[in-house]
Amino acid sequence: MAARPITFLSDYGYEDEFAGVCRAVIAGIAPDATVIDITHGIERHAVRQGATILANALPYTPPGVHLAVVDPGVGSPRRAVAVRVDAEERMLVGPDNGLLWPAIARLGGAVEAADVSLSGFRLEPISATFHGRDVFAPVAAHLARGAALSEAGEQIAPDSLVALELSVPVIEADRVIAHVVYVDRYGNVALDLGEGNLPETGLRMGHPIVVEHDGDSHDAHFALTFADVPSGALLLYQDAYRNLALAQNRGSAAEALELETGDEVVLRPGD
Amino acid sequence: MAARPITFLSDYGYEDEFAGVCRAVIAGIAPDATVIDITHGIERHAVRQGATILANALPYTPPGVHLAVVDPGVGSPRRAVAVRVDAEERMLVGPDNGLLWPAIARLGGAVEAADVSLSGFRLEPISATFHGRDVFAPVAAHLARGAALSEAGEQIAPDSLVALELSVPVIEADRVIAHVVYVDRYGNVALDLGEGNLPETGLRMGHPIVVEHDGDSHDAHFALTFADVPSGALLLYQDAYRNLALAQNRGSAAEALELETGDEVVLRPGD
Amino acid sequence: MAARPITFLSDYGYEDEFAGVCRAVIAGIAPDATVIDITHGIERHAVRQGATILANALPYTPPGVHLAVVDPGVGSPRRAVAVRVDAEERMLVGPDNGLLWPAIARLGGAVEAADVSLSGFRLEPISATFHGRDVFAPVAAHLARGAALSEAGEQIAPDSLVALELSVPVIEADRVIAHVVYVDRYGNVALDLGEGNLPETGLRMGHPIVVEHDGDSHDAHFALTFADVPSGALLLYQDAYRNLALAQNRGSAAEALELETGDEVVLRPGD
Repeated sequence: MAARPITFLSDYGYEDEFAGVCRAVIAGIAPDATVIDITHGIERHAVRQGATILANALPYTPPGVHLAVVDPGVGSPRRAVAVRVDAEERMLVGPDNGLLWPAIARLGGAVEAADVSLSGFRLEPISATFHGRDVFAPVAAHLARGAALSEAGEQIAPDSLVALELSVPVIEADRVIAHVVYVDRYGNVALDLGEGNLPETGLRMGHPIVVEHDGDSHDAHFALTFADVPSGALLLYQDAYRNLALAQNRGSAAEALELETGDEVVLRPGD
Repeated sequence: MAARPITFLSDYGYEDEFAGVCRAVIAGIAPDATVIDITHGIERHAVRQGATILANALPYTPPGVHLAVVDPGVGSPRRAVAVRVDAEERMLVGPDNGLLWPAIARLGGAVEAADVSLSGFRLEPISATFHGRDVFAPVAAHLARGAALSEAGEQIAPDSLVALELSVPVIEADRVIAHVVYVDRYGNVALDLGEGNLPETGLRMGHPIVVEHDGDSHDAHFALTFADVPSGALLLYQDAYRNLALAQNRGSAAEALELETGDEVVLRPGD
Repeated sequence: MAARPITFLSDYGYEDEFAGVCRAVIAGIAPDATVIDITHGIERHAVRQGATILANALPYTPPGVHLAVVDPGVGSPRRAVAVRVDAEERMLVGPDNGLLWPAIARLGGAVEAADVSLSGFRLEPISATFHGRDVFAPVAAHLARGAALSEAGEQIAPDSLVALELSVPVIEADRVIAHVVYVDRYGNVALDLGEGNLPETGLRMGHPIVVEHDGDSHDAHFALTFADVPSGALLLYQDAYRNLALAQNRGSAAEALELETGDEVVLRPGD
């Protein structure tokens, strides 16, 4: 039986060998597993950003084993876990710090979970600081080769997994208070507003809106895509994962609006 | 039949999941296709830089499907295209904004083209802003699996493809006015001078030259390679793609000469 | 016979197509060879950093061909080499400038070596400046397909390979003078102290230490892992490659201590 594909997301960056060594460990255990790097450019220790990107990306990946490591608590008593979800027998592997949580929820919820901190699949001697190499990568590789979750570690209750507290928008009669979930390379600003929130907001596609942040007020347009507004103009749009986001056509909304992850922003209909 | 290899170049960067999600989509459709990342570090929206690097790189890649996405006009009426060239049945997939143009010319010209904007291979629902994931990657993956261009979209005339206007050097009796095509990581500065221009320039290998930019004049040497001049000295050389370029041995010519893409630079024989 | 895996480390960075074009050349020659990128983020021309990371990483990679390119002397008379080591018939390919040296030593020493500067496996016409593409990648690909070292170039004496002079710590009665080997993305500072040095240093796990640099003195703790000290506190620990390193829990030791590669640092037992 061929190995299942492995996706891999981390905050290991590209300057060091961390992600490469994890891939090397996988190649040694499961030589025929395709490894798909989602990104290793998550900001250092940014569990929330990693969790959001993982949950957005996984529905577009082939079913298999999903390895994710953003692990500021490595070496602390936080658990290392492997989780099986309902959808397509997908398995997630990573630290139990909330990183996997939104993806698990997006994929139908956990049906089985194991604490792999002391997994028999670990590399020995295990280091205190590089569990990506010594725990997570080998566990993911063995699962990709067909090992059962029960072989990877000690069974734990799926509802004992650490949840991630996500921000929620406040929707009032004449305005919406939203929060910046993350900022991408282009300066596009994803908000904690999904398409489900839209009807109640009073914000209407094709109409002007006002964006307030930090005492400043900016005119924008609720549009379908960047090219629907003039170069340099601000827009609110539904991003590729169907969340609402702010952008500047051919510019950076994050710079124009001085927004960063976690910031609060107010949206209201324009004139 | 095994899938053909896919090369992939973009301005998606490494911080976000964009390139990774495109690779995941490809892996879902064509699991046995080898994907070769050329680079995802093209500067944001730098169509000209992307086009130059693509045309330089493709002759060194195995024949297959060549996916390229630098797409500032995503969501505008610009076409998404797939193009077959004469050389080795290679196919290129990307936005019709000039990005593919120099590579197509380098590979013998387009012999067949399709508008894939409404391709049956698209992911549904299609987003307005992430056509790499929803259009280009799935089209490339299906072509790699052996789909014909006629299945990927609506046939268009190869001569209707958008051309890229490239800068041309001005060659005078005692000097050459060239332009910076791009600057690489090492600060080497590629010019719009090919080896074909050399005889007429009066610049001779092994001899001193003078480089003028922005009112300043710099001594340099026309040499075979970096090590032919002292550490810190400037040189003109034929780069690995047989274009003329400026470099500083163990330094950055771009910094030393304060040059960036598009700048004009004057070369003349030295004393 | 299937091709052997190829690992690949370089200072080519991610902005340009250099690493991608090398991978494309490999894919053309050895289509079924798995290529594992260790990193391409070595600092420009940082032979020592590249050598350290390569030696650390290779024991975790599957046996095969190990391609490494950090090559400030490209085009100079430095040799291009391929080296077979005792351990698992591994082969290393790269410039003969010390880059491969610590890895060769770690893998049991060279048992056979070849000068591949004029290898019949080179791409023609060869460029003066991009030997990764024209020499090292094709040689590595042919070796991965099963070519013998003797086919790749001219035999040379293994003891003629260029060695890398590594810094050595000075261990005195009441203090240790160590040097910074490299700084990783997290600001962790690897020192030239291995676990073998520990007994003689008088530094004891679980006890306070003092770190001196550039006239300043800092309190730290010799701990097992980051989480063993409060957030923001400094620690000395054994890193994932069993070398001693300095870190700051949830911070950057390199910033806190103003340390960079090559710096001298003094460690002594605290009170």
